[in-house]
Amino acid sequence: MPDDPLLAPLPSPGPPVEQRASLPGGFLAAGASIGIKRSGRPDLALVATTDGPAAAAAVFTPNAFAAAPVRLSQANLLASDPAGAARRGWAQAVVSTSGCANAATGAEGDRDQLAVATKVASALALEPTAVLTLSTGVIGTRLPLDRIDAGIDLVVPRLAAEDAALEAAARALMTTDSRPKLATATIEVGSSLADRRAFTVSGIAKGVGMIHPRMATMLAIVLTDAAVAPGALAGMLAGATARTWDQLTVDGDTSTNDTVFLLASGAAGGPAIEPGTRAAADLAACVEAVARDLARQQAGDGEGATTLISCQVSGAIDDADARAVARSVIASSLVKAAVHGRDPNWGRIVAAAGNARLADAPVLVAGGLGPDEAAERTGSPALVEPERLRVAIAGHLVFDGAHGGPQAFDRGAARAAMDAPEALIRLDLGLGSGTGEAFGCDLTEEYVVENAEYTT
Amino acid sequence: MPDDPLLAPLPSPGPPVEQRASLPGGFLAAGASIGIKRSGRPDLALVATTDGPAAAAAVFTPNAFAAAPVRLSQANLLASDPAGAARRGWAQAVVSTSGCANAATGAEGDRDQLAVATKVASALALEPTAVLTLSTGVIGTRLPLDRIDAGIDLVVPRLAAEDAALEAAARALMTTDSRPKLATATIEVGSSLADRRAFTVSGIAKGVGMIHPRMATMLAIVLTDAAVAPGALAGMLAGATARTWDQLTVDGDTSTNDTVFLLASGAAGGPAIEPGTRAAADLAACVEAVARDLARQQAGDGEGATTLISCQVSGAIDDADARAVARSVIASSLVKAAVHGRDPNWGRIVAAAGNARLADAPVLVAGGLGPDEAAERTGSPALVEPERLRVAIAGHLVFDGAHGGPQAFDRGAARAAMDAPEALIRLDLGLGSGTGEAFGCDLTEEYVVENAEYTT
Repeated sequence: MPDDPLLAPLPSPGPPVEQRASLPGGFLAAGASIGIKRSGRPDLALVATTDGPAAAAAVFTPNAFAAAPVRLSQANLLASDPAGAARRGWAQAVVSTSGCANAATGAEGDRDQLAVATKVASALALEPTAVLTLSTGVIGTRLPLDRIDAGIDLVVPRLAAEDAALEAAARALMTTDSRPKLATATIEVGSSLADRRAFTVSGIAKGVGMIHPRMATMLAIVLTDAAVAPGALAGMLAGATARTWDQLTVDGDTSTNDTVFLLASGAAGGPAIEPGTRAAADLAACVEAVARDLARQQAGDGEGATTLISCQVSGAIDDADARAVARSVIASSLVKAAVHGRDPNWGRIVAAAGNARLADAPVLVAGGLGPDEAAERTGSPALVEPERLRVAIAGHLVFDGAHGGPQAFDRGAARAAMDAPEALIRLDLGLGSGTGEAFGCDLTEEYVVENAEYTT
Repeated sequence: MPDDPLLAPLPSPGPPVEQRASLPGGFLAAGASIGIKRSGRPDLALVATTDGPAAAAAVFTPNAFAAAPVRLSQANLLASDPAGAARRGWAQAVVSTSGCANAATGAEGDRDQLAVATKVASALALEPTAVLTLSTGVIGTRLPLDRIDAGIDLVVPRLAAEDAALEAAARALMTTDSRPKLATATIEVGSSLADRRAFTVSGIAKGVGMIHPRMATMLAIVLTDAAVAPGALAGMLAGATARTWDQLTVDGDTSTNDTVFLLASGAAGGPAIEPGTRAAADLAACVEAVARDLARQQAGDGEGATTLISCQVSGAIDDADARAVARSVIASSLVKAAVHGRDPNWGRIVAAAGNARLADAPVLVAGGLGPDEAAERTGSPALVEPERLRVAIAGHLVFDGAHGGPQAFDRGAARAAMDAPEALIRLDLGLGSGTGEAFGCDLTEEYVVENAEYTT
């Protein structure tokens, strides 16, 4: 079946994405080395608006140990200025420190983080509540305030309206990332020549470890020059995150610092894009395409990874089911290890798919229970029916539940096809038209070595 | 604080357990090598009753790809004989084949498994529905029926009422286990000398990989000579499993074949133990103690493991919360890798505790949402309050949320204390009186090497 859609990736509906930084109008950026990291690598990133507040939306980790920068950003995004609620959902700067998470540092950590925001606000002549904060690194250590204070004085004069400045900010987000994560998409909206406008969406991110839904990101900043009100912007970000960063896992751990910011300057001009319009849908697709590309870059650069693993699911009852099955496959340590060994081990894939969304299902207890009681105790139904499931690995059909299950395939060719920068696992559930995907990486000896080292 | 209970393990309330096999009255056992495994190691285990049906309870994997032996056992446990419902929850034999999971093998796999049960029934002169089945090994391959047929003829004459025979059965459950898992506890029940009776509970199990709640076991068979009706037996097994095997993780994967059987022969004599009595509570404690010891043996012998990690949680709102927090810590790849490096990395522990039961919580989306809406989107509340949490690693207090968070401690001594067959992580949530524990193992390079090898 050369035309079997299971043997090819799902089509990507979004606009094309380039892996480069392109600073949208209305923003300045900078990155610098200020000595938080002992290595001397860049560790302070700053983004600021050129012309007053930008609409801002964010998603944050749900971890109970949410770090001080997360809690301060949440407070500032929801703060009102003395005149009323006008500031809610608006921001004028984002500052990121790398090398120290400022997590599990208690009230002192909160005071430190406020001092960082206040210093940035003072240097840029802003209200402190207009500053959003990010931090990443070791948990449980305090921020080196003196160095950050001097660093902000150093970096503010470097703020520039240049693509290279946004790339420098991306480098200053990194911890053990091997490369900066950059993604840019552009669109034109408007139905007539008169109201046609071009928008840029450009994002930077860091990845690496302690990454798992929800929400898996570590840190990302996405900027656009479109004009969008905060509520509409939050809707776009929530939708994009559900299909991209929430589907990313490296090691199953949700960090204390995960944050994505989406800021819209409006510098491209025109009236604010309204929810429900074609322009809003186009811009949302652009944001999602940038988020997806960043998530894939983060997966491929996971700690110790040699391969991006992408799992695409079709034929689910709905998209949410498809995403849950894809997430279960991508999170399986056994699948991850098999991909590392370039082993087309479909048994582990079907076992992982069979576990999707069963984490809280009670186990069946038979013996003395009637069939009805027994069935009742099996909890939520599985998302996969074995006799309908079809599985392909790197373009090779390996399992077809409706045709005897295991399929004969060329193992050597499948192994060779898996030995690539991206290994694609495709599942069709045969139940409906829902689709979804998830992103991860192989599990390697290097992951263990990196994380077993004495770090605290 | 030398008397701080956080620096010591929680007390174990159950009876003492010996790590040996002790075949209870009313049962025969045998194990043999019949050539399913290419290595020639033991691969067929058989347990049979000596005097008619034993009461039987079971817990099974909830995986959608539940293997043929799982589905056949479920059907047989719920089957009625022609005379009515008398057989529901009763069994006379358990047969286990090792080296082939008989999972994802479709209708042919079901027919193979039925042939195995029918052969055992014929050799022992039983109804086929009186036979329970287990299997473990590679997914997607068919059982070698001819060898199993000959093997059953070989093993039936070896059935013996000896402790060594039960140990031989334990060895025949093994796949890549480095040692058999055996546990025995005994109790005396009865309030007066006249009705005093002694019972034995003895269990065998295999572990190793693809182990995760719910339910984490791979395979276990627990036998007792007590007289208990099937319904009461199911209740005892459900309770024990929730606090032991459901709290065991090696690699986060729930297998297709997980099964625990609990059989009660009644050979010790006396009337059936009734639910709600002191005798029932004592027997349940005995079953749980055996299950807990087997789960700890399975964790310590996880694939590639060098250390059993045990996480004990006190001060939760209730026991279920405590178990969820313990499970979250023990399942963290970063905690597992840190323990492998003997790194008292408490930051990863508090981050993992902060994630407990958040897997399905929506992320917070701020920006344009009012505070109430934002709070609504954070989903279920976290189980941990940072300012109340206390953490000790291997007897060293490392975090105290009420006293500044991070605590000064002797890192060298903590590292040395972690370099032991068991690493204990203790948390107190400071919220209530709920307690719970979970069992796992360190994540090692060997785990990756073992599971990256070409196996299908």
